[in-house]
Amino acid sequence: MKESRFEKQLKFLIEVDKMKTVLRQTILTDRSRQETDAEHSWHFALMALALSEYSAYPDLDMFKVVKMALVHDLVEVYAGDTFAYDEAGYLDKQEREIKAADRIFGMLPEDQASEFRSLWEEFEEMKTPEAIYAAAIDRLQPFINNSVTDGHTWRLHGVTSDKVYKRMEVIKQAIPDVWVFVENVIQDAIKKGFIKEFNERIKNDEYQ
Amino acid sequence: MKESRFEKQLKFLIEVDKMKTVLRQTILTDRSRQETDAEHSWHFALMALALSEYSAYPDLDMFKVVKMALVHDLVEVYAGDTFAYDEAGYLDKQEREIKAADRIFGMLPEDQASEFRSLWEEFEEMKTPEAIYAAAIDRLQPFINNSVTDGHTWRLHGVTSDKVYKRMEVIKQAIPDVWVFVENVIQDAIKKGFIKEFNERIKNDEYQ
Repeated sequence: MKESRFEKQLKFLIEVDKMKTVLRQTILTDRSRQETDAEHSWHFALMALALSEYSAYPDLDMFKVVKMALVHDLVEVYAGDTFAYDEAGYLDKQEREIKAADRIFGMLPEDQASEFRSLWEEFEEMKTPEAIYAAAIDRLQPFINNSVTDGHTWRLHGVTSDKVYKRMEVIKQAIPDVWVFVENVIQDAIKKGFIKEFNERIKNDEYQ
Repeated sequence: MKESRFEKQLKFLIEVDKMKTVLRQTILTDRSRQETDAEHSWHFALMALALSEYSAYPDLDMFKVVKMALVHDLVEVYAGDTFAYDEAGYLDKQEREIKAADRIFGMLPEDQASEFRSLWEEFEEMKTPEAIYAAAIDRLQPFINNSVTDGHTWRLHGVTSDKVYKRMEVIKQAIPDVWVFVENVIQDAIKKGFIKEFNERIKNDEYQ
């Protein structure tokens, strides 16, 4: 056995345990607490499998999608979770995450570092069918948890409907058959006041 | 879209959120709390990918292994986690888990229920190369967490070395190159008193 190779892998596998301490904005369906990055990654991977039949892309490499799910948030071990609707946080998100990627993937032997990092980069770039499908599921998972917790994170941050529609748009593209469900949940959440209705006039007034 | 199919899948995907509330005996590497089944499943899946080169079986279907990791503990949503060294708990484990499998997999459309349940059954039977490799990783993950937390669960339950050796034996079979590491950790844990050394004479005396 190449001892130093295994030692590197072991250190990486111990380090990624920190994914169990990175908290997301999304709460569990029983509302007891926020979910962790490790839990989200598992739920995302399972959801990707269970909903694969709705993919707009034929012959999707589902193994690649699942691998993306498993590694897509590893950079958050150092960069932390940036809330989807946090515009300020998004300004330096890329810079923080590239540094984190150097550090976390760099723990692995070179070939594996490159393999895992490529999966993460492909996911982030959102250009291949696998990455677009993965992005849709990555957004659908917290959306579903929001839908059964009275729009917890939407209410908490006063999110407006335009932002939710923009964030969820990739679902229309990647899993169009699921869009009816998404649209219904958003409309229902607006009706109940969980999502603030975006008002174009108010928005324009602000900038006048 | 076949609406009722999606509704079933949606209910299943909401129900499995409970995997984030099933606590295992293993604690996080930062010792802050016990890990959840969802977190363990994610860590197991990633570990299976990262260590695949050590598999004793050539041409392992790694996608199947990862799918097993994602679904292998779903029955615990209803059956709870049975601690690996809990002999009483193991007596009715199978019965409890079969009932739980009927319930959790039964939420899905028939074809998917059967696909996911087959993965779980194959994992449980531990006969195919994929199931044996998966079993080895499923045991290695908490073993590694134990190794960096002063043998937390071994100490907590006063586990003896014979039990640990028996539980870890599949690692020798499935990922033999990793056995040196496992053996060293066990021997070190015995030396430090984290694992009680099994004494054949004492054991025999008990039954005389």
